[in-house]
Amino acid sequence: MGRVAVLGLGLMGGSIARAISELQIADRVTGWSPVSSERDAALTVGAVTFAAAGWREAVADADLVVVATPLSATLKLVGEIGDATGSHVTVTDVAGLKAPLEEAASRGGLADRWVGSHPMAGSESSGFWASRADLFQGARVWIVAAEAANDHRLTVERLWSGIGAVPCGIGAAEHDRLMASVSHLPQLVANILAEVLEQAGVDPDRLGPGGRDMTRLAASDPGMWADILAHASPALVGALRGVSDGARRMADRLEAEDLEAIVQVMKRTGGWRGR
Amino acid sequence: MGRVAVLGLGLMGGSIARAISELQIADRVTGWSPVSSERDAALTVGAVTFAAAGWREAVADADLVVVATPLSATLKLVGEIGDATGSHVTVTDVAGLKAPLEEAASRGGLADRWVGSHPMAGSESSGFWASRADLFQGARVWIVAAEAANDHRLTVERLWSGIGAVPCGIGAAEHDRLMASVSHLPQLVANILAEVLEQAGVDPDRLGPGGRDMTRLAASDPGMWADILAHASPALVGALRGVSDGARRMADRLEAEDLEAIVQVMKRTGGWRGR
Repeated sequence: MGRVAVLGLGLMGGSIARAISELQIADRVTGWSPVSSERDAALTVGAVTFAAAGWREAVADADLVVVATPLSATLKLVGEIGDATGSHVTVTDVAGLKAPLEEAASRGGLADRWVGSHPMAGSESSGFWASRADLFQGARVWIVAAEAANDHRLTVERLWSGIGAVPCGIGAAEHDRLMASVSHLPQLVANILAEVLEQAGVDPDRLGPGGRDMTRLAASDPGMWADILAHASPALVGALRGVSDGARRMADRLEAEDLEAIVQVMKRTGGWRGR
Repeated sequence: MGRVAVLGLGLMGGSIARAISELQIADRVTGWSPVSSERDAALTVGAVTFAAAGWREAVADADLVVVATPLSATLKLVGEIGDATGSHVTVTDVAGLKAPLEEAASRGGLADRWVGSHPMAGSESSGFWASRADLFQGARVWIVAAEAANDHRLTVERLWSGIGAVPCGIGAAEHDRLMASVSHLPQLVANILAEVLEQAGVDPDRLGPGGRDMTRLAASDPGMWADILAHASPALVGALRGVSDGARRMADRLEAEDLEAIVQVMKRTGGWRGR
């Protein structure tokens, strides 16, 4: 993969750097993080060959730049990276929304060498200490790129395939609409459920495996999510109202002892989930 | 543990039989299931020493009877088992609600030798083929028993400790109220979320790890749950309305772009979950 620069060494960037270094698929991995302890840790465990003190230094002679910071920082970096890198350099990011990034890349003069990535992998934990080389094994990675960036797209797809992920093309708007359903909604439902349990005075230690799974995401980083929700698809509001209506219908049915209607919902959703 | 009879050889009964046999903590394990293929499979893999064709045959010379059938069948069996067993025999069950069982045991003349169990372990899968010897490793098991059944309680606690679980005493009513929050509500929220995603035409294959965790329970057995919901605590209706209100508030905040309020919810629920 030539020389790779990874900007941001949290869960995502740290895992990408670890995977590239462990599998030796690049000549060099330069890492940068605004958090100095993450830079030191990445260097110590061998996730990066070199830890730069600033992002401009990190990208100085890179062939491929991977931006793995929270969404608002990524938008800013993608807007500025064009001027700081040569016109042959591939730029990708791992942000959870792609339409705002596409726009930022275009404004930053990167339209023909920006390739958006969004790996469907993660954790409720964050920071370099949560990163691991196998985070992307078998994970789908959405890829958004303009026709003009086709060569760069191949480079980015090679990166993801090289660390065990499965790249898959999609349009930016379609991606962001899909994420409202498959990512943002489940996250907020975990928070909503946890809020009810917290207010009922339930000790989280009392949860079984199902309840633990259903509230795991409630521990996700609020700052990271505020960034995403600020740019989320309007479809998310409708989906949340759908959950609200569904929960009210379920309460009504339970109160009316209409178990048959509940069984019908369970059968349908079970069939869907098992597909 | 002397001679143990396990009635029902699905996920729970199968796992109990497998664990007892693998760890050799009983002189003999007799199994019964209304499903003949489960009886055959349990015998073939050595989960039971003997597979009985009827439950009366299975309990005939048992010292400890474990009822591991769906709730309605368990209620019936616990009502009839008293007459079919000697007064020294310990009877336990693994049903997800305990107050209806306590009542059935009392009506069946079992008050002084019934010990209710509810292991906080399970899976969205069911049947003997989903069972495994280590299902209960580290799992909390709620134990409900009358003072008069103290000796039998010790026997049942020894069984659970012997297969790696952690028994913990609780009252039947308190247990059932707690389950409305930590078990029944998460189950129904998984169904409600899955219903919204199904109706939005989302392919479940598009889910990431968070979305998969949040909808895993949607594949649970509807029949088993209908049984439980028929006896669930009235608190469950209120909790569902709480989820409905929470989802509506979240939608309103998102629509009003009041991200600060959403971050506050996330911080509070994150603090709760990480406790």
